[in-house]
Amino acid sequence: MDIATIIGIIAGFGLILISILIGGDLSIFINMPSVVIVFGGTLASTLINYPMSDVLSIVGPVKNAFFNEDAKPALLINKIIEFATIARREGILALESQASNAGDEFLEKSIQLAIDGTAPELIRDILATEVAFMEDRHSKGQAILNSAGAAAPAFGMIGTLIGLVQMLAGMDDPSQIGKGMAVALLTTLYGSILANVLFLPLAGVLKVRTASELLTREITIEGILSIQSGDNPRAVEQKLKAFLSPAQREAMKEEG
Amino acid sequence: MDIATIIGIIAGFGLILISILIGGDLSIFINMPSVVIVFGGTLASTLINYPMSDVLSIVGPVKNAFFNEDAKPALLINKIIEFATIARREGILALESQASNAGDEFLEKSIQLAIDGTAPELIRDILATEVAFMEDRHSKGQAILNSAGAAAPAFGMIGTLIGLVQMLAGMDDPSQIGKGMAVALLTTLYGSILANVLFLPLAGVLKVRTASELLTREITIEGILSIQSGDNPRAVEQKLKAFLSPAQREAMKEEG
Amino acid sequence: MDIATIIGIIAGFGLILISILIGGDLSIFINMPSVVIVFGGTLASTLINYPMSDVLSIVGPVKNAFFNEDAKPALLINKIIEFATIARREGILALESQASNAGDEFLEKSIQLAIDGTAPELIRDILATEVAFMEDRHSKGQAILNSAGAAAPAFGMIGTLIGLVQMLAGMDDPSQIGKGMAVALLTTLYGSILANVLFLPLAGVLKVRTASELLTREITIEGILSIQSGDNPRAVEQKLKAFLSPAQREAMKEEG
Amino acid sequence: MDIATIIGIIAGFGLILISILIGGDLSIFINMPSVVIVFGGTLASTLINYPMSDVLSIVGPVKNAFFNEDAKPALLINKIIEFATIARREGILALESQASNAGDEFLEKSIQLAIDGTAPELIRDILATEVAFMEDRHSKGQAILNSAGAAAPAFGMIGTLIGLVQMLAGMDDPSQIGKGMAVALLTTLYGSILANVLFLPLAGVLKVRTASELLTREITIEGILSIQSGDNPRAVEQKLKAFLSPAQREAMKEEG
Amino acid sequence: MDIATIIGIIAGFGLILISILIGGDLSIFINMPSVVIVFGGTLASTLINYPMSDVLSIVGPVKNAFFNEDAKPALLINKIIEFATIARREGILALESQASNAGDEFLEKSIQLAIDGTAPELIRDILATEVAFMEDRHSKGQAILNSAGAAAPAFGMIGTLIGLVQMLAGMDDPSQIGKGMAVALLTTLYGSILANVLFLPLAGVLKVRTASELLTREITIEGILSIQSGDNPRAVEQKLKAFLSPAQREAMKEEG
Repeated sequence: MDIATIIGIIAGFGLILISILIGGDLSIFINMPSVVIVFGGTLASTLINYPMSDVLSIVGPVKNAFFNEDAKPALLINKIIEFATIARREGILALESQASNAGDEFLEKSIQLAIDGTAPELIRDILATEVAFMEDRHSKGQAILNSAGAAAPAFGMIGTLIGLVQMLAGMDDPSQIGKGMAVALLTTLYGSILANVLFLPLAGVLKVRTASELLTREITIEGILSIQSGDNPRAVEQKLKAFLSPAQREAMKEEG
Repeated sequence: MDIATIIGIIAGFGLILISILIGGDLSIFINMPSVVIVFGGTLASTLINYPMSDVLSIVGPVKNAFFNEDAKPALLINKIIEFATIARREGILALESQASNAGDEFLEKSIQLAIDGTAPELIRDILATEVAFMEDRHSKGQAILNSAGAAAPAFGMIGTLIGLVQMLAGMDDPSQIGKGMAVALLTTLYGSILANVLFLPLAGVLKVRTASELLTREITIEGILSIQSGDNPRAVEQKLKAFLSPAQREAMKEEG
Repeated sequence: MDIATIIGIIAGFGLILISILIGGDLSIFINMPSVVIVFGGTLASTLINYPMSDVLSIVGPVKNAFFNEDAKPALLINKIIEFATIARREGILALESQASNAGDEFLEKSIQLAIDGTAPELIRDILATEVAFMEDRHSKGQAILNSAGAAAPAFGMIGTLIGLVQMLAGMDDPSQIGKGMAVALLTTLYGSILANVLFLPLAGVLKVRTASELLTREITIEGILSIQSGDNPRAVEQKLKAFLSPAQREAMKEEG
Repeated sequence: MDIATIIGIIAGFGLILISILIGGDLSIFINMPSVVIVFGGTLASTLINYPMSDVLSIVGPVKNAFFNEDAKPALLINKIIEFATIARREGILALESQASNAGDEFLEKSIQLAIDGTAPELIRDILATEVAFMEDRHSKGQAILNSAGAAAPAFGMIGTLIGLVQMLAGMDDPSQIGKGMAVALLTTLYGSILANVLFLPLAGVLKVRTASELLTREITIEGILSIQSGDNPRAVEQKLKAFLSPAQREAMKEEG
Repeated sequence: MDIATIIGIIAGFGLILISILIGGDLSIFINMPSVVIVFGGTLASTLINYPMSDVLSIVGPVKNAFFNEDAKPALLINKIIEFATIARREGILALESQASNAGDEFLEKSIQLAIDGTAPELIRDILATEVAFMEDRHSKGQAILNSAGAAAPAFGMIGTLIGLVQMLAGMDDPSQIGKGMAVALLTTLYGSILANVLFLPLAGVLKVRTASELLTREITIEGILSIQSGDNPRAVEQKLKAFLSPAQREAMKEEG
């Protein structure tokens, strides 16, 4: 998504760190066995549930969400109109050189298909299949992150129960109760932070991002097919603006 | 919505304040680090999940819910019948002067489209698109508020766990246990109040308001198209009353 | 619903009262500030969420559920067969006098429409609209009661947290801890009772009642249209019995 | 269902009893006021929600689930094929004597309808209606048991809160705290046992049983109609085996 | 699924074991009565809910998920193309010898049906029925595992409540409180581990596996029908690759 995703994650962890430092020493919040049981347990439960390949395949969309800015539909439409103008003036083959630096893999592929003279129905089929698999990949990613977001607090609780049992069973020195309890609670804290600052919001990111990528890809498909059928740039613009909200159309008008 | 929304929020926070003051000092309920972790954490988690532009776009509908009174379908129908009468008597162009002070942006826009002689199907298309984007904006707003309503108690719990760990780890002075615990519980209290007095009811407001705006906008679209097609005021009235409940129709009859 | 609703509510509150009295004094369970925060907070949160008019409109269906006995489909069918017999023998206008004391507003209205010679499709339209609005009103009522059933325990917890913080912060006299805690827990108790004895079961009542009223109204509509079309009483009976379960049909046979 | 349902309930309660007896005296787990508030409260809340007649009507299907063995589709198909052979050889009236000892009320009724020469469409209508009402009755039963399964823990918590308030408010003798707390926790224990050993699994039983009865009743309807239309036993067998899983078909082949 | 499932389960239990051993003695975590109530109770509640035969039938798919590697669609397609080549060159009967060592029961059965000259529609029907029953069996398995995943923590809590009541009622020796509490908490720990390391992830495995088996079986059905209709291997390849994601198609291209 936009810069907000990174700001949000840094802010989330930062606020927790600050609120810990205000209260005292950071070291009492670090406990390796607690880290191992919560992180390890969450990972283990995810690996049981999903095949390794699916778990690894969420890295792509998540990295995307951080480092690729969300495509702005208005910019995309302007670029496609530009392509339509070139195609109209110099023929569709003139897009060859443009395709390679469109800066958007899906758009490049679409142009290439159009230049190659692929039949329109086939272009639509090929691109729609790719969109369907993108959706499928993202929804698997959401499911995995949501499942990790449920597993983390559960393993946090398991860790706390283990700590409590150990503390209560060996309660020889009452003055150590507080310290034992503090350590026991750490896993619950870790699980809660992992779920609420990381897994659940990232699952949400993929959901929002999927909706937004679907829109830009539908715009691309319609635009390329319109260019290929020889529509004039103004007709292409009319078709694509139907995908924008009234507010976005106003914004485009002012800019253009 | 109506005045009840503002009364509700003031009453909600007021009751909590009063019940605090009855029990003693307000100052023990104010703790800046606790405020920071709950408000900040909730905001951070929302920013990770949703693009900045979506988060900012909920201000509009929420402000609307507070300061614009909910459109009364019966009043709207009366106004449209009035317009139908004018259009019938003096021609549709006579609505030009009325449009500017209809006091309802959507109604004004609809009249303007009709006056401009836009084709009926196009009017319906343009207005339906705007309604669809309004619905979409509101349902995004609901999703964001519901997600904030889930994040606030979660960060409240995270704050309480941090406080408990600090208190338990440094339990040198047993007489301070009570005070430490009190501070630790404050974040859970903040999170609970934020979610139950603010975020969740506001998400509900947007849902109720969306349903009610959908109705008034459908009435507007049908009414304007009926006026444009030259229907007489009585026929316009018949068409639009189908949108009212029997009770509302009774009420209109008594007034008129 | 039937008498069970009232018995249930009295029994629910009665059992709680008895179990309190067995354990000792009732006075320790009464605390005005606790009452105010739970009742007031629940009301405030409901008022934020729903427009005042919707909140007030649930009084009708709820009162109905208590004081109007649930219509027995078999009795209704017998009454309609009786009307069919009269209409067959003396003409449909002879139902005029019957209509006024049918003891069921919807049935009366249906008969009146048939007597007025309204076209069958129009009768069906008018009555179906009224049924749709009844359903809508009841489902709003359910939503409001369910939302109150979620708000009550939440405000109970907010009250308990406030009480705990006050008790813990001012823990000068350890012998007072128990009393403070007891008072703090009262709001959670109130919220729990309100939700589980009142709001949630009443939401259930409206759901069950809606299903049962839908059935009787469909029977009424089919019956009146059948009478108006001049069907003989035996044909009316055949049509309407399709709405009954085999057991109910057996019961009717035995009675008749 | 099969014997497993009874074994399950006895085992569930038995295990709890054993684990209590291992730990000591049973008498500390018996407390009449606690029994009254949990059982009574659950019943009260169910009576508010559902009409008395619906609550009583779940006794039938639940008793059925215990004492009638689940119909085996393969056995039913064999019996129907046998009937088809008789009907083919001696005419459909020869089934009269078989009908009365088919040991399955629905099958008997179906045969009787076929013998009476009822038109096939009417047979299908009559039997389908009965199946629809069976489904409806079972799904009501599920809803009631699920609602009781939610009410029991809620009343358990209400009872515990009452007990805690009484114990904390009257905390004169600290040595009695433990005993008071023990009694207070009993209601939560009762509610938890009722929900998890009784109500929720029984709701599940009705769901599973409904699916299995639907299958056998569909098989019966198709089989009887096939017999009535004079199909030869082999054709009847072909039609009905489509309802079996490949594994069940293998099993039938081996037996037959 | 792939090796990850076994690694996940071993890692899940291993991590918990390690984190226990780091903290001290394993023996304090073993308590037979606690084991009995959680395992036994979960089993009892599952047996009440589901017929014995359904409970036993989940062993197959779960074992499958562990020991059969997930079919790779690309490998399957290559094998089917190979069969198509043989069938084209030597006639479909030449597949007879291949069928027996295809290493995939469903594929073998499909080939056998094709060799036997079964009509295409009948092949599709027979195989689709088998797929439907596979889906049904898996979804029952999921439901049972999810229900066990809900029952385990519930019986954990019941066990803890029993332990707490016994400890609190017999609180003669305050120094034993800790030990009693430790034992009481064990059942909650067991329930939590069972649900989160075993039942819930295994329910997830069946869901993921069902989706993946559905894909390979659809590929098999389409492939065999294509071979039977005499399509050339290249046409078979074109048809089946439509089931692959673009990435999988790339991978096939590189290999082939």
